Amino acid sequence: MTTSPAPRLPLLKRFSQGELRLTRIEAFSDGVFAIIVTLLVLELKVPPLADPRSVSALGYQLLDLLPKFLSWLISFIIVCKFWLNHHHILGLARHANYAMVWLNALFLMLQSFIPFPTALMGEYPTNPLAVSFFGCVMALNTVLFIALHAYIVRQLIKPELADTYDPRAIRKSFVGPLSYLLGAASAWFNVHLAFLIYLLTPLFYIVPPTGRIANAAISIGAAGLERDRVA
Amino acid sequence: MTTSPAPRLPLLKRFSQGELRLTRIEAFSDGVFAIIVTLLVLELKVPPLADPRSVSALGYQLLDLLPKFLSWLISFIIVCKFWLNHHHILGLARHANYAMVWLNALFLMLQSFIPFPTALMGEYPTNPLAVSFFGCVMALNTVLFIALHAYIVRQLIKPELADTYDPRAIRKSFVGPLSYLLGAASAWFNVHLAFLIYLLTPLFYIVPPTGRIANAAISIGAAGLERDRVA
Amino acid sequence: MTTSPAPRLPLLKRFSQGELRLTRIEAFSDGVFAIIVTLLVLELKVPPLADPRSVSALGYQLLDLLPKFLSWLISFIIVCKFWLNHHHILGLARHANYAMVWLNALFLMLQSFIPFPTALMGEYPTNPLAVSFFGCVMALNTVLFIALHAYIVRQLIKPELADTYDPRAIRKSFVGPLSYLLGAASAWFNVHLAFLIYLLTPLFYIVPPTGRIANAAISIGAAGLERDRVA
Amino acid sequence: MTTSPAPRLPLLKRFSQGELRLTRIEAFSDGVFAIIVTLLVLELKVPPLADPRSVSALGYQLLDLLPKFLSWLISFIIVCKFWLNHHHILGLARHANYAMVWLNALFLMLQSFIPFPTALMGEYPTNPLAVSFFGCVMALNTVLFIALHAYIVRQLIKPELADTYDPRAIRKSFVGPLSYLLGAASAWFNVHLAFLIYLLTPLFYIVPPTGRIANAAISIGAAGLERDRVA
Repeated sequence: MTTSPAPRLPLLKRFSQGELRLTRIEAFSDGVFAIIVTLLVLELKVPPLADPRSVSALGYQLLDLLPKFLSWLISFIIVCKFWLNHHHILGLARHANYAMVWLNALFLMLQSFIPFPTALMGEYPTNPLAVSFFGCVMALNTVLFIALHAYIVRQLIKPELADTYDPRAIRKSFVGPLSYLLGAASAWFNVHLAFLIYLLTPLFYIVPPTGRIANAAISIGAAGLERDRVA
Repeated sequence: MTTSPAPRLPLLKRFSQGELRLTRIEAFSDGVFAIIVTLLVLELKVPPLADPRSVSALGYQLLDLLPKFLSWLISFIIVCKFWLNHHHILGLARHANYAMVWLNALFLMLQSFIPFPTALMGEYPTNPLAVSFFGCVMALNTVLFIALHAYIVRQLIKPELADTYDPRAIRKSFVGPLSYLLGAASAWFNVHLAFLIYLLTPLFYIVPPTGRIANAAISIGAAGLERDRVA
Repeated sequence: MTTSPAPRLPLLKRFSQGELRLTRIEAFSDGVFAIIVTLLVLELKVPPLADPRSVSALGYQLLDLLPKFLSWLISFIIVCKFWLNHHHILGLARHANYAMVWLNALFLMLQSFIPFPTALMGEYPTNPLAVSFFGCVMALNTVLFIALHAYIVRQLIKPELADTYDPRAIRKSFVGPLSYLLGAASAWFNVHLAFLIYLLTPLFYIVPPTGRIANAAISIGAAGLERDRVA
Repeated sequence: MTTSPAPRLPLLKRFSQGELRLTRIEAFSDGVFAIIVTLLVLELKVPPLADPRSVSALGYQLLDLLPKFLSWLISFIIVCKFWLNHHHILGLARHANYAMVWLNALFLMLQSFIPFPTALMGEYPTNPLAVSFFGCVMALNTVLFIALHAYIVRQLIKPELADTYDPRAIRKSFVGPLSYLLGAASAWFNVHLAFLIYLLTPLFYIVPPTGRIANAAISIGAAGLERDRVA
């Protein structure tokens, strides 16, 4: 890290230049995550009723909304899981550069797309294409997340975490996209199975990370919190 | 709190591991709260008019919107109350762990659901199921909030607040869900009574907390502010 | 300001107790302001076209949207102005208490209502009730803002700003609601005049504040910034 | 910068007075950017299907949505680019004043307008007026951004960056609005060419800034990050 003016660099190299503070990237990302999870509910529309006072008519209409409730629930858990893991991987970086900002923007673009496949699957829960499309979008989201994770670990990792870098941790993450693709494939045979796979996949991820790098990050975090408390 | 690498733990134990900074959890939660209260107004749709210049037609249409205005008002106050109390209980925690993050996500999921029962009750204010559904959702929200509160007080409380822990304070919070359930039950006899109960329940909560733990938290907060001002 | 446990206080007194940090109140308020100004554009709906390729048909439809563009523009400027002044008055407070939080919540509630009268006026720009309703909502918003301002100045002002308190500054603020009420009244005679008054009122406010208290706040702010830079 | 009370100034001069902290301006701007990019997806509506289980019908409907997907993609990249550059230019300022806040508000107003031309172009991709309108709005956005950039560089630049001020950097920025206007003009001959130009223009911008001022800002940022890490 030098404080003397950087020389003019070739185009691709320049993307790995620049040291951007992480705070505004976190603020922008948190804003996008918060809006996505909250917008999901807008797909739950008030059903029309011939007789506004009819309890049974409203009851049946609410039951008809069950696939939409389920789609909303699955997407909410998935986006929360991405938010939490995003929190984790940004904590590994010592700073941001332009390449990371654009990888992050691409990832957030696909995140902000999630309300569309969610609404599609909620509206047509028996249509294999709609259910399969949902799984493909989620697989793509996870791949972009892994790309961001790998870039941070390889290029921007905090010096104190660098020794603990274990390439197998990234490789294990591919369970996520493979599971979503399995759900997307199973939708063509049995949509209920696909829903089940989509619901179970994030549960696999909500387990806190373990392994050497996670432990080291946690220890450093604890030390940092300890320091904050003492100061 | 140790800074040596944590050993591999069984699944459930791992959720109480990890020390996450509270700032991004607050930022994400504040974003969700802010979006919920602002989205509520989207249910107030511009009414159609046969004659766009007719004052009396518009006047009658606005009067017809009164149940929607009232639903919006009740939900706005309830969500603001939850935001304020969320602010209070996160201030009790010394840090976050994975279990707390997922309890918080579950709570925010039910919060972000609020626009749907609000719209339902605003559209069908004379339908007992719609009015009762609103109360049940609010009761569930309050129960999740109490679970988050109890978890923080039992597992993550700041050491300097630990002596003042009083289990009766949590027990008293059950007035909230019981009151919402009372409203939900009364909707089947008289919807006006249910609206009144929904409106009064958050008012019970807006009173600032008292008791030993609240006083201690306020004192520590004051000391902290004092310190900030001197520094 | 005492750090010993506060005694049990009567209900109304308790609202002036408690020292809440201003940061989460600012974050929540900023979120609400940002969402309001961005939601305003959702009222600008893509017009239907019989022939999707017809340039003249689209041109006429866009011209028909002019009242909606104007309503959007007026509300955007008004909310930005409220955001900026909110920024200013929260900077006067040494901390927050429960009464201030609820005044702030009430103010934000009326702010978040703004998209509705904006849409109403945009849809029925020739209906005196729609145009007048807009002015009344804005007058009420300004009155709530003045109440929040007065409460902060009287109860929570920073000690270093206390000498410069000038009650006439608050009194002058009533030009705002009176001007909106004048617009609301004039809507019954001439809607164009009302639009003009609504457009000019916030312009009166965008002028930076002057007077002793503003100068003192600016000086203290400058000193604070200076200190930050040196530190 | 003086800490003695400022004298009463003429109207226009007062706008360059006042020293506002940049943090709330960043928070408000980040909120607006995050909401804009996330709202863009709301234009992607679930298509109606005569037979909800028909895979081919849904497939054709999704293909029909391609222009909307493309409009969404272009606007997402453009707004992310504006967010990143906004991040860059606010980092050049030593503080904010009223003139900058209002320039920023004007810029954000035009940013928050982006969902409308995006929806219009997505709905009528073969209508030259719709496609041309999109380019004109983007050109205007870029001009407002340049105005904000120029104001910061001329009036509010950090003292340590002042020597590196190069007016040609600002002049080069006019490539952006000219390119959008070229796209807007080409829409009247060939809409596909216009889409291509709109897609390529932000790509020109995502390259990290170079030149003396960018290098100096990066060096200072690096020094600041270094300082944070040591402290």
